[in-house]
Amino acid sequence: MSETNVKRTGSFTLPGESGYEELTLKMAEKWGADVIRDSDGTVLSDEILNAGYGIYSTICIIRDHNEWAKQNLDKLQQTFLMTNPKVATDTKLTFHLMEDFFEEQFKINGSKDSLKYWQVYDRTSNELISTDQWKFEEESGSVVVEGITPWHKYSVSFLAYRIWEEISMYNHTTNNWDKEHLMQIDPRHPKTQEYMLAWMENWCKTHEDTTVVRFTSMFYNFVWIWGSDERNRHLFSDWGSYDFTVSPLALDEFAVKYGYSLTAEDFVNKGKLNVTHMPADQHKLDWMEFIHDFVIEFGKKLVDMVHQYGKQAYVFYDDSWVGVEPYSKRFKEFGFDGIIKCVFSGYEARLCAGVDAPTHELRLHPYLFPVGLGGAPTFMEGGDPTLDAKKFWNSIRRALLREPVDRIGLGGYLHLVEPYPDFCDYIEKVADEFRTIKEFHQAGKPYVLKPRVAVLTAWGSLRSWTLSGHFHETYMHDLIHINESLSGSPFDVSYISFEDIKNGVLEDVDVVINAGFAGSAWSGADKWNDNEVVEILTKWVHAGGAFIGVNEPSAVEGYDNFFRMSHVLGVDKDNGARVCHGKWSFEVSKVEGLLPNETTMKGKDNIYLTDGKAKVLAEENGVPTLTSYDFGSGRGIYLTSFETSLTNTRMLYHIILFACKEKLEQNYLTDSPMTECAFYPASKRLVIINNSDVSQHPVIQTENGPIELDIDAYDTKMVTI
Amino acid sequence: MSETNVKRTGSFTLPGESGYEELTLKMAEKWGADVIRDSDGTVLSDEILNAGYGIYSTICIIRDHNEWAKQNLDKLQQTFLMTNPKVATDTKLTFHLMEDFFEEQFKINGSKDSLKYWQVYDRTSNELISTDQWKFEEESGSVVVEGITPWHKYSVSFLAYRIWEEISMYNHTTNNWDKEHLMQIDPRHPKTQEYMLAWMENWCKTHEDTTVVRFTSMFYNFVWIWGSDERNRHLFSDWGSYDFTVSPLALDEFAVKYGYSLTAEDFVNKGKLNVTHMPADQHKLDWMEFIHDFVIEFGKKLVDMVHQYGKQAYVFYDDSWVGVEPYSKRFKEFGFDGIIKCVFSGYEARLCAGVDAPTHELRLHPYLFPVGLGGAPTFMEGGDPTLDAKKFWNSIRRALLREPVDRIGLGGYLHLVEPYPDFCDYIEKVADEFRTIKEFHQAGKPYVLKPRVAVLTAWGSLRSWTLSGHFHETYMHDLIHINESLSGSPFDVSYISFEDIKNGVLEDVDVVINAGFAGSAWSGADKWNDNEVVEILTKWVHAGGAFIGVNEPSAVEGYDNFFRMSHVLGVDKDNGARVCHGKWSFEVSKVEGLLPNETTMKGKDNIYLTDGKAKVLAEENGVPTLTSYDFGSGRGIYLTSFETSLTNTRMLYHIILFACKEKLEQNYLTDSPMTECAFYPASKRLVIINNSDVSQHPVIQTENGPIELDIDAYDTKMVTI
Repeated sequence: MSETNVKRTGSFTLPGESGYEELTLKMAEKWGADVIRDSDGTVLSDEILNAGYGIYSTICIIRDHNEWAKQNLDKLQQTFLMTNPKVATDTKLTFHLMEDFFEEQFKINGSKDSLKYWQVYDRTSNELISTDQWKFEEESGSVVVEGITPWHKYSVSFLAYRIWEEISMYNHTTNNWDKEHLMQIDPRHPKTQEYMLAWMENWCKTHEDTTVVRFTSMFYNFVWIWGSDERNRHLFSDWGSYDFTVSPLALDEFAVKYGYSLTAEDFVNKGKLNVTHMPADQHKLDWMEFIHDFVIEFGKKLVDMVHQYGKQAYVFYDDSWVGVEPYSKRFKEFGFDGIIKCVFSGYEARLCAGVDAPTHELRLHPYLFPVGLGGAPTFMEGGDPTLDAKKFWNSIRRALLREPVDRIGLGGYLHLVEPYPDFCDYIEKVADEFRTIKEFHQAGKPYVLKPRVAVLTAWGSLRSWTLSGHFHETYMHDLIHINESLSGSPFDVSYISFEDIKNGVLEDVDVVINAGFAGSAWSGADKWNDNEVVEILTKWVHAGGAFIGVNEPSAVEGYDNFFRMSHVLGVDKDNGARVCHGKWSFEVSKVEGLLPNETTMKGKDNIYLTDGKAKVLAEENGVPTLTSYDFGSGRGIYLTSFETSLTNTRMLYHIILFACKEKLEQNYLTDSPMTECAFYPASKRLVIINNSDVSQHPVIQTENGPIELDIDAYDTKMVTI
Repeated sequence: MSETNVKRTGSFTLPGESGYEELTLKMAEKWGADVIRDSDGTVLSDEILNAGYGIYSTICIIRDHNEWAKQNLDKLQQTFLMTNPKVATDTKLTFHLMEDFFEEQFKINGSKDSLKYWQVYDRTSNELISTDQWKFEEESGSVVVEGITPWHKYSVSFLAYRIWEEISMYNHTTNNWDKEHLMQIDPRHPKTQEYMLAWMENWCKTHEDTTVVRFTSMFYNFVWIWGSDERNRHLFSDWGSYDFTVSPLALDEFAVKYGYSLTAEDFVNKGKLNVTHMPADQHKLDWMEFIHDFVIEFGKKLVDMVHQYGKQAYVFYDDSWVGVEPYSKRFKEFGFDGIIKCVFSGYEARLCAGVDAPTHELRLHPYLFPVGLGGAPTFMEGGDPTLDAKKFWNSIRRALLREPVDRIGLGGYLHLVEPYPDFCDYIEKVADEFRTIKEFHQAGKPYVLKPRVAVLTAWGSLRSWTLSGHFHETYMHDLIHINESLSGSPFDVSYISFEDIKNGVLEDVDVVINAGFAGSAWSGADKWNDNEVVEILTKWVHAGGAFIGVNEPSAVEGYDNFFRMSHVLGVDKDNGARVCHGKWSFEVSKVEGLLPNETTMKGKDNIYLTDGKAKVLAEENGVPTLTSYDFGSGRGIYLTSFETSLTNTRMLYHIILFACKEKLEQNYLTDSPMTECAFYPASKRLVIINNSDVSQHPVIQTENGPIELDIDAYDTKMVTI
């Protein structure tokens, strides 16, 4: 009954390679490609360009303009930097501004329009030092501060040009390249815009064969501040922060538009900067909006030009994506024809699939490079690219069963696949499998279980699925684990904000998940000071809703409980004020089938039962790790932590069902956490996947009775119901 | 050279027992007793009273007056209680006030003067509900609140009489007694004072043989609130809190004296109450002062009366000690002739020894009871009272080598020792050892190492040595472990407040230790918002001082660093705002001899090096657990945690020496953590103790060359230098 043997074509982007024309065309046919792309810095030969395939060309609009950049050094992109605070031993201090920073990345902007935004702070008293008390000595790159209080700490915040585009800097230093450093130009300046538009027009004219222009991405890189010391090279990295969008001109324009001025402190924030994992204040939100407006406004001009030349414009959702915000309501205004995301994890596939754009495309891993990210061998001695491909597909596939994308593809150097026929066969299978699943989706949505799940964060839908960057950068946050588990789950999933709750979103929600440490954007931080939100959620749970809290949900200081939703959870965390209070003793209650074998949970200190009525479903060292509390017709569930794994993912499904008082055994849910399935009622097809590295024999209940079958490690089976 | 065989007498209090007159006199002679005491509730026979010994009699002035109490139920002691908050599902809520509380302990005080202090709070909005909106229904013991906001949480704070004296309640329920419940009367009322003075006078007249009246203790018990449910019987217990001192009369008098009124909320504090481990606000400090004034004022009248009858007055430093405050500057005004403390731990011995009183006496463990605290057998089948005594003496002895007390003694039923001649011999040895050490102290102070150590907390000297209660009640705080280790250390130790720092105390200090979790009284909480304190400490470390921070030292939110002293520690804790920041890589530096074998430390998440210059001396899972940072001429040391043990105690000594840039090997410091010694220059005696349960062979450097010897498990040796 397998359908993966039926040959289908299309929806596949192949990286072509000049000098390997025969291989390119052979693999294009084998993998059913309809589009051939260049890769960063490569050019396709005429033989490939004229073979009848669509042609993707990648451009990075803000770099690769070094000649112009050198003549316009005042139009390079910038950032605020803050020196490490120093303790004054008398009334005078000298700061060598670049002491802490990577001199190849930054150059002090000591111009007059820049200096007006610099700030010196007394970090002991949190007071701004008057500009009369300090001066910038350009020659030595120093700021000298006088008349200050001995034994207080001071810091200088200043503006610096970024003189090395960060992605190229990373590739360069990682691979020990000896090339010219690429610089990045800032389209904020009208002259830069003029130059870019002219360049784009020329590009379109000289790339007749290109059918799709792939922007990598727009203008501003995620923040990546490098330090002067190799022991701490990466001082700061945040995929979702806007520090690299700043300049005196932008700040001036902001002040005019918003009626107030931002300061260096709004960006450097006592040296902490503003990480995406913490909630943004109104200044940051205003700035993000201001930049987003600009990126759309000027980005649209470039997209329009591409369209004028009869080409499509896709955007790559990585690198200099800042200001693009694919989950903003205004994203459509760009006019992009497609969005492309490279994916390691299921949540990234959902991140791409959920964008409101005509075409969604995934760049699969492994890339056709000798080594993968992290330096492990791939297409070279010691590598096993087929196994790598299976594992990556394993992560992505379950997400694609739930929400379709339109295309998949590869990147890199095609010639590397030649010694790996096994890999070529596997990609052929994956491409066919992808097309089949896409057909099922086109016929009709997959079956979902009843509970509709909403994840509540301070960011709401703007940060749907992702927190900030890749999984390995955010693994310390419970929510990325939950997102990854949910990405392939048989539930409708949405991301909501506190404002959404006040606007009635809970009418269409059965389960709210709130997960994160206190003070984080994911838990919600001071958004929980809004009594109206607490009221609405309380009423909603009482009427039958389910609230699942993980780690420090709804946590904020200032109330009788640290967790503001403790009255529906039956647990709270003691921050020390209750260290002398008695603790309710408890026995662990067992809910049949709730926790699969090998479920793991990391316990947390100082969790206590508020009124003793919560059922403790799991514990560690006498402290509850999983509890359930009945509140009115609804239920509150608390978990100390969540880590994604096959068994924990299934546990999460069970917890969601249990929270909604649904049966744990459901049709179209396999009987083992190692396997999952998706049922497409319109096409009557059931897709079963083995997520594990050993063969399995799952049993699936359906409305027509049980189905059981054998399935190899990582394999996919499709049956008709 | 041992001196323990020389027979000395005196300084020993024996518990006599009627019916065992012969045994009493025999043991009095064997143990060299000069005083015989009764125990709680026992009476000594004439044969004992007339044997020529001093006689201690115990009285508890606020209980044992049930007849008077029953006629004066409005003069029983009281407390504020807060109901568990309840969620309103409509605009009305009913609270059964006693639902959560042990009905044998409390009785609602619904009188008019009480009701004016009751409060109903909206715990969702933190708003006080108008008294128009609620009423107390006396018959059902309920408060009905109306006109409230649905889905908000409400609580009622009310006054209740305590109808069962807590110590008697504990003994009663633990031993399943079937006796009348003792009540406690409140001397706040003039009529109670009249009654008590008359009773005291009569008591003095009828106890001619008594030489010392031992008060147990004064008037107000530490807080111990019991709950209605056996699963959480002990709702709240704090040895240092003042909740049990309250009454409408006291509140009225306070308002007159202080010019403002306290409210129920000042006591119940959102249901958290005010634990000693958290810093007190000015309202609590004012109330403590108000009660202390009263306890001294009326207590002194009782002490004066005892003196008038030619007897001495000692106070037992436990049970209803609240308001006595032996470490307050006013304590001397009571006129007590002595203070007695029962001791399990070394810090408790120092707690007693440090009080400004003519006589200090320790009640040693084990008590002469069949079972010990915790229910383990002592003087019965399965018990080993001699080993127990050795272990207890082991904890106390090292503290007594450092700071003398005047007397020791036992408590309980003497007849129980008869079948244990081994125990009787051991106590004889202990008594002689104690008297010998006391003589050494009388000749001159023991030798100390150079660093003078000050422990900095929000409480300062008022809570010297103790946090709040016994070790097992406070084990979760680093500071109790540090106190216990310091109690037998060869350093001068003091306890200082933030105010003391501003008053110049650091002139006489070489090392400041600040240890505790953020927000606790031990770490200092918002006391660290005082920039002057930070300035003084910074300057002092720069000039050569040593700052040792443990757990979350100097931690408070609102600055560039969480630890305000991070600039002298070189480390800080990230509360999430720096989760995207780079971390300094480090290698562990070894300081020869600093960490004894089997040293333990519990790591802590999110500790990072601020500028990379701190030396990491130990780490766990890649996170520093012990660091050293040179700041000017001084040094900052950070430890993630401290747990007392023989090896960790020695590690602490080394850290103190290292922090002060002193050699780790010093004269009169044994070469092994298992043993310690104290040198008395005036008497040229060196006392060596084996704190371990196996024999040891320590080597001790002295100014006259090394000394080495064998010493049995738990044993003491004394040599002349």
